[in-house]
Order: sequence, then C-alpha cells, then structure tokens
Amino acid sequence: MAIVVGYVATREGRAALKRAAEECLLRNAKLIVISSHRGGSKDFDADEASQFEAELARVARQLQDEGLEHEVRTLVRGNDPAEDLISVAEAENADFIVIGLRRRSPVGKLILGSNAQRILLDASCPVLAVKAE
Amino acid sequence: MAIVVGYVATREGRAALKRAAEECLLRNAKLIVISSHRGGSKDFDADEASQFEAELARVARQLQDEGLEHEVRTLVRGNDPAEDLISVAEAENADFIVIGLRRRSPVGKLILGSNAQRILLDASCPVLAVKAE
Repeated sequence: MAIVVGYVATREGRAALKRAAEECLLRNAKLIVISSHRGGSKDFDADEASQFEAELARVARQLQDEGLEHEVRTLVRGNDPAEDLISVAEAENADFIVIGLRRRSPVGKLILGSNAQRILLDASCPVLAVKAE
Repeated sequence: MAIVVGYVATREGRAALKRAAEECLLRNAKLIVISSHRGGSKDFDADEASQFEAELARVARQLQDEGLEHEVRTLVRGNDPAEDLISVAEAENADFIVIGLRRRSPVGKLILGSNAQRILLDASCPVLAVKAE
C-alpha cells in the first residue's frame, strides 16, 4: 500500500504532507512524495531550486526520523503536476492521493486551481484534499 | 472521532459510503451519514422519497451488521447539501468529510459540481473525494 502526495513548499503543501504521513502510519503504507517540475528555463530559478532542494531534504530527514517508509521523487518530465501525480498513483496502485488546497479567498472567490480540479476528476483512486492549519 | 459522508443513491454515493465505512473501521471512528434535502414541494416526489427511505434503511442495517458505530441523519433545513455537510462536520469536529465524485465525462467535459466545489473549498476539515468503482 502507498499514499502519494504532491509536495509544494507552501502552508497547504506542508499540511498535505503532514496528513499523508499520518495516514501512512495509520495503515502501515509507504509514503511517496512527488515534487513535480515542468522543466525548461522558464521553470528554473537557481536560488529557488536550491531552497526547494533544502526543503525537500528536510522533509526526507523528518520522515526518516518518524521511521516512515518513504520515497522522495523529483520529476522533471515536462508534465503538469496533475499528470505526474496521477501517473505515479496508478503505477503504484496507490490507496489515495493527498493534495493541499487553499481556502476560499477573503473576497469569496473560488480558487480551486486547475491542477487540483484535474487530479480530483482524473485520478482513478480517491483524493484527500487538505487545507492549511 | 467521526467521519461525515454525504449520501446520495448513485454509484458515486455508494462508493463514498463504502470508503467512509472502511476508514471508520480503520481508525475506530463513528460514521455520520447525512442525507440532505432542501425541502419544499419542488424537492419532494412521494415515490422517490419512499425509495430513498428504503435505501437509507438498507444502509443503516448494513452498518449495523458491520458493527460500526453510526448515525443516519436526514436533514430538511432548506440548505444546500454542501452547507449541511460542512455544518455537521464542524459541529462534530469531524476527522474528514467523504464525498462521491463523478469521473470526467466521455467528452472530457469538467463536471466538478458546485456542491463538490463548495465542500472542497469551504470545509475546514479535509475532504476525501471518491469515484465509483
């Protein structure tokens, strides 16, 4: 059994990772953390990339400390994050995918992003949507 | 601990209920099944209502047989299903809400309904979105 989580360095992304780890411990499943990048110069900023690598390394250490079986995969395949998450979830026969969602904005505007919508609609496994705390 | 599921008599609704029951057994949580109706004559069809009551009774018996602590609440408060689910989840401090989602339609049209969007965006707890099997 595996749970797949899309990792982004935002409050929602961290909340998703935390919840995914808890769900893995509960059902003795493997955690697969996906960091998805489209690639190409437009997607690349050296400072940001090195900060993100440091953050991912911190995440991996934390999962190690919790004794949780896990993998951290950085994918640069020209895909949208939705495609990467769905394809990994299918290949691993995942129990579910965890994604972070922003709350409705202060002006009440709907902000369900296109990646979230695609994952919710196209993943064949269940999707757990988590808000920041 | 409680898990709240919105029940509708569709393949997606049944898949959501099944998954919610499994998650309750896994974490020893109480299952709260919500059947939400707006009320008023437009919402009421005697035949449909009696069929739905029979289906809900069948659901309750099945949960009973599984030995799962549960409640089945039929709400007719003039609310959208999204409002009813969110308010119950908040009152019960639910672990999460489970909803059924249709897959993308054959022509690829996005069909994430307004109730699903509202629950995903406005619920403060996580939301598990489940497809029909």
